[in-house]
Amino acid sequence: MNTTNSPTELPLAEGPVILELIRYNKEEYHRFNNLKANELIDQLQPDKVNWINVDGLQDKEVLDKIQAHFCLHTLLVDDITNDQRPKAEEYEDYLFFTLKMLYKIEGKHIDYEQISFVLGTNFLISFQEKEGDLFDHFRERIRLDQGRVRKQEADYLLYRLLDTIVDNYYIILDKIGEQIEDIEEEIDQGTTQQTFRQIQKLKKELIFLRKAVYPLRDAMSKLVKGETSFIKDDTIRYYADIYDHVVHLIDSLDTYKDLTAALMDIHINTQNNRMTEVMKVLAVISTIFIPLTFIVGVYGMNFEYMPELHSTWGYPLTWMVMITIGAGMLLYFKKKKWF
Amino acid sequence: MNTTNSPTELPLAEGPVILELIRYNKEEYHRFNNLKANELIDQLQPDKVNWINVDGLQDKEVLDKIQAHFCLHTLLVDDITNDQRPKAEEYEDYLFFTLKMLYKIEGKHIDYEQISFVLGTNFLISFQEKEGDLFDHFRERIRLDQGRVRKQEADYLLYRLLDTIVDNYYIILDKIGEQIEDIEEEIDQGTTQQTFRQIQKLKKELIFLRKAVYPLRDAMSKLVKGETSFIKDDTIRYYADIYDHVVHLIDSLDTYKDLTAALMDIHINTQNNRMTEVMKVLAVISTIFIPLTFIVGVYGMNFEYMPELHSTWGYPLTWMVMITIGAGMLLYFKKKKWF
Amino acid sequence: MNTTNSPTELPLAEGPVILELIRYNKEEYHRFNNLKANELIDQLQPDKVNWINVDGLQDKEVLDKIQAHFCLHTLLVDDITNDQRPKAEEYEDYLFFTLKMLYKIEGKHIDYEQISFVLGTNFLISFQEKEGDLFDHFRERIRLDQGRVRKQEADYLLYRLLDTIVDNYYIILDKIGEQIEDIEEEIDQGTTQQTFRQIQKLKKELIFLRKAVYPLRDAMSKLVKGETSFIKDDTIRYYADIYDHVVHLIDSLDTYKDLTAALMDIHINTQNNRMTEVMKVLAVISTIFIPLTFIVGVYGMNFEYMPELHSTWGYPLTWMVMITIGAGMLLYFKKKKWF
Amino acid sequence: MNTTNSPTELPLAEGPVILELIRYNKEEYHRFNNLKANELIDQLQPDKVNWINVDGLQDKEVLDKIQAHFCLHTLLVDDITNDQRPKAEEYEDYLFFTLKMLYKIEGKHIDYEQISFVLGTNFLISFQEKEGDLFDHFRERIRLDQGRVRKQEADYLLYRLLDTIVDNYYIILDKIGEQIEDIEEEIDQGTTQQTFRQIQKLKKELIFLRKAVYPLRDAMSKLVKGETSFIKDDTIRYYADIYDHVVHLIDSLDTYKDLTAALMDIHINTQNNRMTEVMKVLAVISTIFIPLTFIVGVYGMNFEYMPELHSTWGYPLTWMVMITIGAGMLLYFKKKKWF
Amino acid sequence: MNTTNSPTELPLAEGPVILELIRYNKEEYHRFNNLKANELIDQLQPDKVNWINVDGLQDKEVLDKIQAHFCLHTLLVDDITNDQRPKAEEYEDYLFFTLKMLYKIEGKHIDYEQISFVLGTNFLISFQEKEGDLFDHFRERIRLDQGRVRKQEADYLLYRLLDTIVDNYYIILDKIGEQIEDIEEEIDQGTTQQTFRQIQKLKKELIFLRKAVYPLRDAMSKLVKGETSFIKDDTIRYYADIYDHVVHLIDSLDTYKDLTAALMDIHINTQNNRMTEVMKVLAVISTIFIPLTFIVGVYGMNFEYMPELHSTWGYPLTWMVMITIGAGMLLYFKKKKWF
Repeated sequence: MNTTNSPTELPLAEGPVILELIRYNKEEYHRFNNLKANELIDQLQPDKVNWINVDGLQDKEVLDKIQAHFCLHTLLVDDITNDQRPKAEEYEDYLFFTLKMLYKIEGKHIDYEQISFVLGTNFLISFQEKEGDLFDHFRERIRLDQGRVRKQEADYLLYRLLDTIVDNYYIILDKIGEQIEDIEEEIDQGTTQQTFRQIQKLKKELIFLRKAVYPLRDAMSKLVKGETSFIKDDTIRYYADIYDHVVHLIDSLDTYKDLTAALMDIHINTQNNRMTEVMKVLAVISTIFIPLTFIVGVYGMNFEYMPELHSTWGYPLTWMVMITIGAGMLLYFKKKKWF
Repeated sequence: MNTTNSPTELPLAEGPVILELIRYNKEEYHRFNNLKANELIDQLQPDKVNWINVDGLQDKEVLDKIQAHFCLHTLLVDDITNDQRPKAEEYEDYLFFTLKMLYKIEGKHIDYEQISFVLGTNFLISFQEKEGDLFDHFRERIRLDQGRVRKQEADYLLYRLLDTIVDNYYIILDKIGEQIEDIEEEIDQGTTQQTFRQIQKLKKELIFLRKAVYPLRDAMSKLVKGETSFIKDDTIRYYADIYDHVVHLIDSLDTYKDLTAALMDIHINTQNNRMTEVMKVLAVISTIFIPLTFIVGVYGMNFEYMPELHSTWGYPLTWMVMITIGAGMLLYFKKKKWF
Repeated sequence: MNTTNSPTELPLAEGPVILELIRYNKEEYHRFNNLKANELIDQLQPDKVNWINVDGLQDKEVLDKIQAHFCLHTLLVDDITNDQRPKAEEYEDYLFFTLKMLYKIEGKHIDYEQISFVLGTNFLISFQEKEGDLFDHFRERIRLDQGRVRKQEADYLLYRLLDTIVDNYYIILDKIGEQIEDIEEEIDQGTTQQTFRQIQKLKKELIFLRKAVYPLRDAMSKLVKGETSFIKDDTIRYYADIYDHVVHLIDSLDTYKDLTAALMDIHINTQNNRMTEVMKVLAVISTIFIPLTFIVGVYGMNFEYMPELHSTWGYPLTWMVMITIGAGMLLYFKKKKWF
Repeated sequence: MNTTNSPTELPLAEGPVILELIRYNKEEYHRFNNLKANELIDQLQPDKVNWINVDGLQDKEVLDKIQAHFCLHTLLVDDITNDQRPKAEEYEDYLFFTLKMLYKIEGKHIDYEQISFVLGTNFLISFQEKEGDLFDHFRERIRLDQGRVRKQEADYLLYRLLDTIVDNYYIILDKIGEQIEDIEEEIDQGTTQQTFRQIQKLKKELIFLRKAVYPLRDAMSKLVKGETSFIKDDTIRYYADIYDHVVHLIDSLDTYKDLTAALMDIHINTQNNRMTEVMKVLAVISTIFIPLTFIVGVYGMNFEYMPELHSTWGYPLTWMVMITIGAGMLLYFKKKKWF
Repeated sequence: MNTTNSPTELPLAEGPVILELIRYNKEEYHRFNNLKANELIDQLQPDKVNWINVDGLQDKEVLDKIQAHFCLHTLLVDDITNDQRPKAEEYEDYLFFTLKMLYKIEGKHIDYEQISFVLGTNFLISFQEKEGDLFDHFRERIRLDQGRVRKQEADYLLYRLLDTIVDNYYIILDKIGEQIEDIEEEIDQGTTQQTFRQIQKLKKELIFLRKAVYPLRDAMSKLVKGETSFIKDDTIRYYADIYDHVVHLIDSLDTYKDLTAALMDIHINTQNNRMTEVMKVLAVISTIFIPLTFIVGVYGMNFEYMPELHSTWGYPLTWMVMITIGAGMLLYFKKKKWF
């Protein structure tokens, strides 16, 4: 039963909620797709690891049944259906963990999906906003009994899922690293207004990434401190490994932030230089021709008594004076390194 | 008795102070409006939850009576009537909590009202600056016995009120998020001086929001640590939920701050670009015509002996020279990507 | 005896040091003005609160006598006579507290005066740089036995003095708040070089205020932690109130710092806009007339064979061409939103 | 067996992995080059210090054999082969330490190589990305029994290797310090676009250096706290010395960051000044000649009735007026300090 | 014996190392100058305070003898001869403290000299880079038995030396304060390129001062915590006084940093204003005369059929039109507050 008004409800997916159960131990492996909530509860076996995956949060009835069976706290269900800061919270009978799962859509836009986990002694429930996740490859490994997961319990399963999500952060960060290099090259070949937009887009992506990754450090450190009984001592070292990855990610985010700021500086400097170049050409041409135009203006005057006008040498001498002035100015500007 | 000079007294509302009492337990519910202070005190029943709501702080006599009956500390009354940083303070017989309640007036201006709570074992007093609050919907829920509030004690009541206030922060933050997107779009269509004002207004709103929200984290964490006996262990988890919301709010405020700074950068860049564009047109036109004007000036001179003037080809040749120079410069500027 | 070289000696006032003693308990009140050091020591009574106020630090002899009678540590006397960071220090027989007392002189300049307190079990010594302080109103309250001070001991007296000083910080901060609003209005009506100076002055005032207020938080928190025996448990809550005020002040200082930075941005933006406006007018006028001036120059040439000159329609046609060009350019600039 | 997907795999060197063993105690010294994995394991002697150096991480088979013999944890092998934040981690049977080894290639580009250490009671394994390191000089010292290393155990060996790496950081930082001074001189002689590139390159180098050095402080502090049994109490002081060096390095990095920012300011200021100078010359020349050109234009008009034109003094008077205006303007600009 | 490669060796002074011994207790005082290392060791007396001052670090032999006699740790001797961050380190038989001693050379350049102290129960060794220090005045005080130093032990001696060094920081900071005021005044009278250089120099000096002073806080706090047995409880209060001074210095450095940044803003604003002023004059003159020059150009055309030219009123009317246009523009610019 959800009584509190939600601060920022997650957008609801359309269509039915998809329930999936993967039940395994050393000897056995079963996967059930598209179960109804009641069927799923019937299939749970306490002596095995039961991974329940819920795709979609739009069906209150389904969530209520799961809540009732696992005695989930009202606030926990609120947390699952609302936009949350990544966090870990221990309840009496289970551990709650929520974070963002990131996708790069067509290599362009980063999509954020909230994923929440409830870890009990022999079960793990994962709540996703919509269908489709990063775990298909890993599901296959469980089925084929590759790696250590079948020999381990639910806490190791959660480790593997978190590890997969965090590893995917690296892929997105690498893409950003490539983008930064691309923009650098672009600037070398002449910055454009386009470049500015790209840098701004990058900056914005980093702002949102930071919001997803920074709180994860605190959440992971809670698990690593070993205060929770739902993660066994042997498994803690694995969580510590994810913790190290998150800290490494934060380092990289900070580095990228600094690099993006540097890109911005380069872009602005390049633009200023171009402006300066334009103004210099204007200044050189104006400064040379304005006095010369004055001189020719003088001898365009119609005074009756202008002795120079009647001299045979007036015209060539005027040219000589003008060429001297023009050349002198050019030399002066060259010396001043104006161009 | 209030002896200390107040550092920054809250502005006093006009009209009489409005006293309201909501008294309830599992079985009963009573609401009394517009009570006098004495009547109110007579209606209190120790075996029920007594929620006393005081709208307006302008009537010293009323405050004195309440202070006397509940033995409120002098400093506490000072805190209620003065502008305070959000904070939690435990006294021997009650817990004091003060924070800002935010309203969005006509979707434009954010209004801040200070609300203070005194939580005892079977009572909760709420002091507001003026009439009107966010709790009407919730009062109705108590009356109809919806949710868990009638089964719980005063500490749960305080939780629900705080939760309502903090949830309203989200609504205001969402509005700011929308404004940021609006401004982004506006800039895409051409930034104006108007845009700059809007960004500045946003920045200022964020500065004041930060001042209201940041200290709330410390105040909430004091309640969550479980050191106070006025909040029962079962209820602490609810307060922890508000704490999480506040931390999430702070994250969002930081993100919005960064986004606003980015908006400012975009605005400035757009303005600079427009200036550059103007200057480039000026530079191109000037640089082309200034030498040409010089040439026509030359043949406007009135020297008697200018052989070119008498040649039949003088005029057309001059045109050809001028067109060549003009076209050459245009090509040069094109190559330099000036326009 | 003062042996260490002082790092930054306070400026010494002129004239004699003024000693004042206020001695009181529940029943009695005595005030002695302009005492000599010896007389003052004779008047001390251990069963009452003795508040010794020293105005001026220029007379080493007086300080030596006080130091000798109260066994003040050499370093403490150094601290009193030198510019200090606000701090609290506990010695065996007394508690030392120093901070800055702020005055607003003629509503313009902020004046800083260092005030140091030595709190013993039944005495409080206050050392001020010069005559005149903020306590006259409070002295009157003691005399008239208003409030609780006559019923309390020396630690409460120190609280009231500190409270008076910190409350005065608010008045100064309010003035700064008003100044910020004034400058905002001024900018709305057209920023001037004057505005820039005012913002800079504000910025500087905030820098120095921060230096006076930030360390006060640490100093106050030392008293509030309840580790010192010179402040009784009942009184600690009062000190905690001052601590809250100081934290609130720091919040406000940070807010004002952000607002001042925003003012600066607005000022710079306004200036840039004006520059841009000027350059645009120049650009529009130049860009329109430079080509036209070229055209009239062409027909000012003196070539013998210029067929246009002899045509009856030459002159009006030239005007038509020029008007077309001018109007075309105006339309183009309008479309580009140059003005 | 490496089962987790690596977040950012280190680039693999080509060619075979090179294994080297240096085995010594007070009396004996043996060095084995280019051993196969099996041969190396046979040569280990538990009563001596065994330093195994692995150059290259491309041969999974070799790594597996080493992992198997020393019972290295899966996550540890992952850490060795992936890009890591510098860190220290204690396992049951060994201590893991990883950091970056820096090279300055041809005095230009800084190259980062990850080096990882596994320290057991009588062995030290060092994993490098590729052949070639900073330890040749030190290997010679071991052979010749110089210094204290032959009398000490494996923890002292690790200290010496870490010390060599950190000392090399200083050499790179000194180079950066020299670069800063070079750029300062360059700016004094006239800044160019080249200067800007150099400052940007410096900034980027400092960003990456920070990423390598900052986390080292935490890693080293873990060793210094004396919580690990693999570093003996006598040796801890040596590690504390490295810790001090790292903190010193961070101080220097911060200083260099500030200096680089100052360089940028100087560069921008120099550029602005040059622009201002150019614009001033343009302004002075234009402002003087534009009115004069107007005047000569006036007397170039062809009105029939212009009395001045027929006056004998018209021409010289016009010159006098123009010279007066020109000189007046020059004086005005001089007074305004325009040039 | 110094075996580690030094990260950044201090520059070595020329000439011989100068050894000085001052040996005193309440009754006696002896000063020995220019001793050889052996002689010095012979003169040490365990029942007195022995202050050994070493001027110059260039003579390894002398350092070795001192190291041997006092059993100084290898790392400690490394620290003395290499550039160090200010720090305090306790060894078994002595306490090591190193910091920077600052000189103001001819009121211009700040010179940094590293000074290291080794404090034992009855001796204090001070190592300086070169001859000349700040202690001459204090040596005289010891000789004349002024102050408390002759009655105290070596820890008090160290306090007095540290206090002298830190007090000298204040003198340097005051000089910087004066410089800031000087530059402010200069800017009031018209900023120049010179001003910019001065601000930059100031900024650089503050960067380096910060590097010397900030770590001193941590180093001093180590002594103040009372964990070391080499500083007696009575003396700790004196060290706490230095600690307060260092914190005060850091406050002042931060304030000066802010003030310097403000100076930079003022400088940039002043420069921009001048540029704006220049551009405005250019714009006003150009904008007025460009249209007028066009008009006179029109009547300079040589068309045969221009009726205006033959009218008697053509010329004066043209003047009237031009004066009207010019005056109209001037009024417009005045209204726009362009000048």
